[in-house]
Amino acid sequence: MAGNSIGTVFKVTTWGESHGPALGVVIDGCPAGIEIGIKDIQREVDARKPQTESGGTARKEEDIVEILSGIFEGKTTGMPISIMVKNKDHRSEDYGDLKDVYRPGHADYAYDLKYGFRDYRGGGRASGRETVSRVIAGAIAKKILTSFAPTCVIIGHTVQIGEIEASRTNLVALDSKTITSSPLRCIDPEATEKMLALIEKTKNEGDSIGGMIEVRIQNPPQGLGEPVFDKLNADLAKAIFSIPAIKGVSFGEGFHAAAMHGSEHNDNYKMRNGNIVTETNHAGGILGGISTGEEIVIQIAIKPPSSIGKKQETIGIDEKQTTIEIKGRHDACIVPRIIPVAESMTAITLVDHLLRQRAGQHILT
Amino acid sequence: MAGNSIGTVFKVTTWGESHGPALGVVIDGCPAGIEIGIKDIQREVDARKPQTESGGTARKEEDIVEILSGIFEGKTTGMPISIMVKNKDHRSEDYGDLKDVYRPGHADYAYDLKYGFRDYRGGGRASGRETVSRVIAGAIAKKILTSFAPTCVIIGHTVQIGEIEASRTNLVALDSKTITSSPLRCIDPEATEKMLALIEKTKNEGDSIGGMIEVRIQNPPQGLGEPVFDKLNADLAKAIFSIPAIKGVSFGEGFHAAAMHGSEHNDNYKMRNGNIVTETNHAGGILGGISTGEEIVIQIAIKPPSSIGKKQETIGIDEKQTTIEIKGRHDACIVPRIIPVAESMTAITLVDHLLRQRAGQHILT
Amino acid sequence: MAGNSIGTVFKVTTWGESHGPALGVVIDGCPAGIEIGIKDIQREVDARKPQTESGGTARKEEDIVEILSGIFEGKTTGMPISIMVKNKDHRSEDYGDLKDVYRPGHADYAYDLKYGFRDYRGGGRASGRETVSRVIAGAIAKKILTSFAPTCVIIGHTVQIGEIEASRTNLVALDSKTITSSPLRCIDPEATEKMLALIEKTKNEGDSIGGMIEVRIQNPPQGLGEPVFDKLNADLAKAIFSIPAIKGVSFGEGFHAAAMHGSEHNDNYKMRNGNIVTETNHAGGILGGISTGEEIVIQIAIKPPSSIGKKQETIGIDEKQTTIEIKGRHDACIVPRIIPVAESMTAITLVDHLLRQRAGQHILT
Amino acid sequence: MAGNSIGTVFKVTTWGESHGPALGVVIDGCPAGIEIGIKDIQREVDARKPQTESGGTARKEEDIVEILSGIFEGKTTGMPISIMVKNKDHRSEDYGDLKDVYRPGHADYAYDLKYGFRDYRGGGRASGRETVSRVIAGAIAKKILTSFAPTCVIIGHTVQIGEIEASRTNLVALDSKTITSSPLRCIDPEATEKMLALIEKTKNEGDSIGGMIEVRIQNPPQGLGEPVFDKLNADLAKAIFSIPAIKGVSFGEGFHAAAMHGSEHNDNYKMRNGNIVTETNHAGGILGGISTGEEIVIQIAIKPPSSIGKKQETIGIDEKQTTIEIKGRHDACIVPRIIPVAESMTAITLVDHLLRQRAGQHILT
Repeated sequence: MAGNSIGTVFKVTTWGESHGPALGVVIDGCPAGIEIGIKDIQREVDARKPQTESGGTARKEEDIVEILSGIFEGKTTGMPISIMVKNKDHRSEDYGDLKDVYRPGHADYAYDLKYGFRDYRGGGRASGRETVSRVIAGAIAKKILTSFAPTCVIIGHTVQIGEIEASRTNLVALDSKTITSSPLRCIDPEATEKMLALIEKTKNEGDSIGGMIEVRIQNPPQGLGEPVFDKLNADLAKAIFSIPAIKGVSFGEGFHAAAMHGSEHNDNYKMRNGNIVTETNHAGGILGGISTGEEIVIQIAIKPPSSIGKKQETIGIDEKQTTIEIKGRHDACIVPRIIPVAESMTAITLVDHLLRQRAGQHILT
Repeated sequence: MAGNSIGTVFKVTTWGESHGPALGVVIDGCPAGIEIGIKDIQREVDARKPQTESGGTARKEEDIVEILSGIFEGKTTGMPISIMVKNKDHRSEDYGDLKDVYRPGHADYAYDLKYGFRDYRGGGRASGRETVSRVIAGAIAKKILTSFAPTCVIIGHTVQIGEIEASRTNLVALDSKTITSSPLRCIDPEATEKMLALIEKTKNEGDSIGGMIEVRIQNPPQGLGEPVFDKLNADLAKAIFSIPAIKGVSFGEGFHAAAMHGSEHNDNYKMRNGNIVTETNHAGGILGGISTGEEIVIQIAIKPPSSIGKKQETIGIDEKQTTIEIKGRHDACIVPRIIPVAESMTAITLVDHLLRQRAGQHILT
Repeated sequence: MAGNSIGTVFKVTTWGESHGPALGVVIDGCPAGIEIGIKDIQREVDARKPQTESGGTARKEEDIVEILSGIFEGKTTGMPISIMVKNKDHRSEDYGDLKDVYRPGHADYAYDLKYGFRDYRGGGRASGRETVSRVIAGAIAKKILTSFAPTCVIIGHTVQIGEIEASRTNLVALDSKTITSSPLRCIDPEATEKMLALIEKTKNEGDSIGGMIEVRIQNPPQGLGEPVFDKLNADLAKAIFSIPAIKGVSFGEGFHAAAMHGSEHNDNYKMRNGNIVTETNHAGGILGGISTGEEIVIQIAIKPPSSIGKKQETIGIDEKQTTIEIKGRHDACIVPRIIPVAESMTAITLVDHLLRQRAGQHILT
Repeated sequence: MAGNSIGTVFKVTTWGESHGPALGVVIDGCPAGIEIGIKDIQREVDARKPQTESGGTARKEEDIVEILSGIFEGKTTGMPISIMVKNKDHRSEDYGDLKDVYRPGHADYAYDLKYGFRDYRGGGRASGRETVSRVIAGAIAKKILTSFAPTCVIIGHTVQIGEIEASRTNLVALDSKTITSSPLRCIDPEATEKMLALIEKTKNEGDSIGGMIEVRIQNPPQGLGEPVFDKLNADLAKAIFSIPAIKGVSFGEGFHAAAMHGSEHNDNYKMRNGNIVTETNHAGGILGGISTGEEIVIQIAIKPPSSIGKKQETIGIDEKQTTIEIKGRHDACIVPRIIPVAESMTAITLVDHLLRQRAGQHILT
């Protein structure tokens, strides 16, 4: 049944396969009058591309954004916004030999189980390529967010690759400029060097490596999140887990909270500049499912890419034992490439809740 | 805006406040003809109660289940099932003094921000008491699951309290009987002793402690989960994050996947008894957002309860600095009490996806 | 699958059977801070009762409203509002003999087809009794509407019973007081006399009779309705067709528009008191699915009640030919009783669209 | 807020403006394995075009269907199906002069009210041109319907234009071939001649004319429709009212039911070939919101097109009185052109309910 839409008031529907004619997105529920140009969107789509061979795929992806509806004379009209990018670089011959075998770690077998057959070209819709549609929607969401909450910034960064962790000492200086100038979107240059070396080594071995990112929402709007099921953290977690390769999501202290006492974990309130704030931020900006205005902090665990050159034991669609060595161009590490996608899913979720909150607020408040 | 329903085909709506006249749930979309008795539901609600003083709250909660609609002559009719429990033990005088102050770690301030005022009696709807409605819905979901997938079992257990971790050596023997006979729903008796001692000590200090549970879905139906946004893991994560006090959710290797190579993390396929299975289960039973039939393994981090007796610095609704010592009966550790709730949310999500999959399957398959 | 909820931002879920323990409603998405007392709701529920034996059922329905959640200290809290009425007057023995036979015009056979069996007591959930839940939700919706749009009034009246049509000459004087003082909620006293006589005669013959009502929304908020599928007229039509016994819905000129020319049907614009208005209102207040601010005019056709005393040919659940004479207390005409239900569904739909419009409006407008 | 999707399990989202680069649709929730070719869709889109100058618009619309996703090797994959048609024939200069004035009967003023401004080119999204997306989705829905219910046929025909009504005597011979060979899709050749003459006369006068169609669902699946709000008739009515220019929808006897007695209107049951059927079909195939298997009969009233050449009084966006004579190519009567759109909305709604019913059915039935 239908599962390709996310959001309630601000609804995003993606479509398209890795090796079909095009991929795209329909964004329904965007308020009218938001100024948005094709460059705002193309910039985000370009940022999704790998910055170095080590930091991502070697495929040349020239994704040219085409706006098909919903924007007129530079402004959103309130109508559904349809945007697509054509697939130029098919090379489906690279994938044809994967038609008859189930790649370990991939969704091939799961799709065959569920649908009876599958579009085997490059993973079809289970491919990371689908995320280009999310980044397009994220670009629109960020523009809306800026209209309603000008100081709110969403920023993701790499905190771990393999066993190498970035230092958290520079975290106070975290900003978009610093991060986008880093090849791995990591704030710690020393760790970055080690990470790049690890990725290079892993690649040479025909293997892949996992990692961890953190997404921070600075100056989030207050009061977002709808008790009890549509808590802001619940909807953020769903949005992020919908990205391929995500294995864990946590907020604030996350799994460390398991070992803490209440007297440590509770964030005491105090006044600052006439506002109620917390002294610490163990909660990560959300209480009772509602944003308090403190920074929202999300940790995201990413598995190593499933496509590896090393020989693997597996089963064919004929149910016979076989081995597989996946050829072609594959990312040894997708951690930095997940960041713009995670930022986009965060922005989409925030905007949906921002508009939901506007609907529900009493006229007097 | 409306946020108190979960599920699409199988829709669960909860209502009721901690100290209002009653709490309840409306379950819409239950197939007709499922045999269900009030005892099936009462048993699950009783299991939600604390087993020992150390293992949970000292409040005597006598929750008598009343079925108001949707079940006729012992079977579901396909009509909405409305069930409630009346609140008997109000003692709202215990809570009246919390009207004017924001308790650290609680949702008080967030609710005031969002709604302009709040039902301050015992946390209102943000109270853990709301989860009784979820357990009722979970009882129905389990009956449906058993009708469609008789060998599927959902079982949660405590794996960590504070810094004490349970041994995983006995995990193969995990079953409901073993778990429900443990005061902390923990499979490791030795760790249980230490955990109980830690909880006792924490309680005496007027403090609280966090922990971690694991929910396992044994023999899950295959093919559940709807790409791309309504992935099974995404919807399970949302459902679990909607429970109060949850700070992290992960699947399979979870955050450990960040440090793994693809050649380690990929689960190779092999044949067993004529079926395609995996040799290992690092993925935790879900690939591409779809259940493969392998065991689904979910880790859940739980924060320490926010209500502690220790003195805390905070702010009043008058925006003045003050201190608070929370009196009354409070759980020093809610980890074992979360288990039936997490199992319920898991069952609700599985049943929704089971019915969604039935809708989408082609007539020929 | 779930079908007992209506609305998106303002969501109403009803539950309960004609002869179960209770019927009720959960209203989710009500803004916080709306002042509402139990009397506001009880008054609307009382108005649903028949005013004369001729004008409706002879059953004594004492529906005592119980508020279970969502209202605290006289105001809505933003939490789901749960309200129920207990069923006092079961007399299920009257209905037991209908267990084995399909009543013509009723939903008995359709329910057996769909669900395999049915709650045969008094029609179960297909009974008109279910509409008490809608009237409760409508009472809340009217309070919200008054908060946001104080001059907006929803008023329904009887325009036809059998072949007797009310004169439209007094329509300008249409107000709630006039209408509720009429035994048939009809503005034409002369027609009312004839209608009452027709109903009396029909009743004596063991038969029933249909009719038509009109619902008018005076001073509706402008700009409500979401192109293209969630047009205001489309959602109003769905809401009204969800009431039992409705056979037709039309707006403005309705079916008369089929015979009109564009030059007759188009409503020319003009200025009045600095506002853009139309000279005529053939469209009935909605253009392109969006309310223009002109009066919204809806016609609703109601079939004659299916329960009649006259002998009818039918089939039993044993698939054998039989006859049936339906005993007990039945309405010969339900037209005036549909009015408060139709008003309620109209109010629910308007409020949902009002809150949807708030969500979508740009910050600058 | 988002309003451009319809359906729950089978979800259709349309996008695109009359004079934008393209229009299209995303169909999510289509079961996998349905055989469908581009010709199946192109044929339906072609059938939407006017057959004669009198019977519709004189614009040459060459709508070339492009399938962008969701169909692989001739079968649906279960993934979202994205289809578009490019706009070739813009001629936006024809519409530029309508930028500053509100056309009577059109949505211009309503859009400005709601969104603050509008895409004034040819009505933007309020244009009838948007319905091409619905016909594409309808083509897919019809293929699914045929897979699951091979004998079910949806057929619409013209029953009235202006005051000229078609005879109902030939109704028994109603089939697609007869209807599509008629220039006005009318079963009565004599009435057709008169209707064509009326349209011609109306056109010459620079005016337009309304009409009425009937949609019949022959051999519908039994048991479709979800009590209580998502009744099959309620959802069909919403789907049909979402088409531009619709002013009334009724089922079975429709507005005639208002003047009938229960003893006339009730359809008695009898056995035929071992099946329970009704002797008459006053109800129009739906009881209690559920399809019984009898033919579903829907009447639809269509207003005269708002674009007329005759001079009309109106207001400009400068709020000054002015007159307007709408130039260009406009339909004097859109009744036959609505038929494929109404059939499509009917098919979309039926398929959604068919899949919903599959989700909800108990495993044993």
